[in-house]
Amino acid sequence: MNDDILVGGHISRQFDQELDEIRSRVLKMGGLVEAQLDKTLDALRSGDSSGITDVEKLDRKVNKLEMQIDEECTQILAKRQPAAGDLRMIIATTKSVRDLERIGDEAERVAHMVRHVLDNGAAPKSYSGLLALGEEVKELLHDTLNTYARMETRSAVKNMRKDQDVDDEYARVLMHLIEFMKTDPDHIAGALDVMWAARSLERIGDHCINICENVIYLVEGEDVRHTKLSRIKKQLS
Amino acid sequence: MNDDILVGGHISRQFDQELDEIRSRVLKMGGLVEAQLDKTLDALRSGDSSGITDVEKLDRKVNKLEMQIDEECTQILAKRQPAAGDLRMIIATTKSVRDLERIGDEAERVAHMVRHVLDNGAAPKSYSGLLALGEEVKELLHDTLNTYARMETRSAVKNMRKDQDVDDEYARVLMHLIEFMKTDPDHIAGALDVMWAARSLERIGDHCINICENVIYLVEGEDVRHTKLSRIKKQLS
Repeated sequence: MNDDILVGGHISRQFDQELDEIRSRVLKMGGLVEAQLDKTLDALRSGDSSGITDVEKLDRKVNKLEMQIDEECTQILAKRQPAAGDLRMIIATTKSVRDLERIGDEAERVAHMVRHVLDNGAAPKSYSGLLALGEEVKELLHDTLNTYARMETRSAVKNMRKDQDVDDEYARVLMHLIEFMKTDPDHIAGALDVMWAARSLERIGDHCINICENVIYLVEGEDVRHTKLSRIKKQLS
Repeated sequence: MNDDILVGGHISRQFDQELDEIRSRVLKMGGLVEAQLDKTLDALRSGDSSGITDVEKLDRKVNKLEMQIDEECTQILAKRQPAAGDLRMIIATTKSVRDLERIGDEAERVAHMVRHVLDNGAAPKSYSGLLALGEEVKELLHDTLNTYARMETRSAVKNMRKDQDVDDEYARVLMHLIEFMKTDPDHIAGALDVMWAARSLERIGDHCINICENVIYLVEGEDVRHTKLSRIKKQLS
């Protein structure tokens, strides 16, 4: 008899290990994406764009991990044919991994904009709000990874609220930039770079919320996409 | 004995029907998303924003279908435990459905921008290029849905090339808008609306390419994300 069978929470101890491995790979991927955003914000803060090459290098690692995790999830589905909770875990994981990869892409976009802005010596005035927005988004990403690691619906809902703050901050940055462009039309192209960067940061927030929704789906078995925040809170209380 | 078993290509005729149903639902969803983009471009062409309410109504239908298809895919995974090709079909479907839903979101964004631009009576000069870009994207979306319906890798690769044309057109629109803003700083806000709309159209192209990549993955069992187009063509030739 195969001693791999009927041990622990699952039929197979091996299966438990495989699921654990996927979870820890996702968190590793999350850590890399966080590092991409960190290095981008460092460049913006210090005015030194040399760290941006690292952001690109990290992106290749992130992409590789995404495909690897996806492949592992597919294999588990084919080999283990998981039911209920495990199945939800795997579906939520492949989705979250896609969002993480997109976050990495957006971080890289921001990094390129930052390099472009720094190389062209744009007036710091035009990007003062960008750093504040970036810090908020960085915190949201960090909290989102914690939410995923601990599979907590309560913190998932908290993060959704935080994303609304990010959206408000983004709107402020935008208004400020429009004013700047009106008074200084010669620097429109530079201001637009800052605007795209702000937009990418705002998108990172959206991807974080997707991951939080996946956690809620995983834990509660409840699909909360396209559901208003107030209703989600009510459902989970 | 259950007559549902050992009939047709699959163990179960019922299973074949379920897969067919999912495929046709995806195409139905694709049709709705196409209608969203069509109605948006109609409004832009005619200068009449009354059809934009339909775009919003369609979006609710699209969102509903996304969740429904996702739920059906999950149930099939749990109940049928499909192997190899069918499994890839289901994974590719849940991913494509997500891209379709995003395309719908972007189309709605464009629609709102168009309404905003029309309501504010912005100079048509600033959005002349937008319609051309929209037409190209519309064609790409149509071709992408055909690619999905027929599961053709050859046309998938062709669409990827088309997306490069979309990107070039987008770059032209952008340059034109920057010039416009420089010479007419009073209309910066309006020109930015057009810019966001152009960005959303370009994103629709990206989502189409994701769907094409999913088709290649499905047919060839080959993960072509993060792979250069020239290499994909080589792999498939």
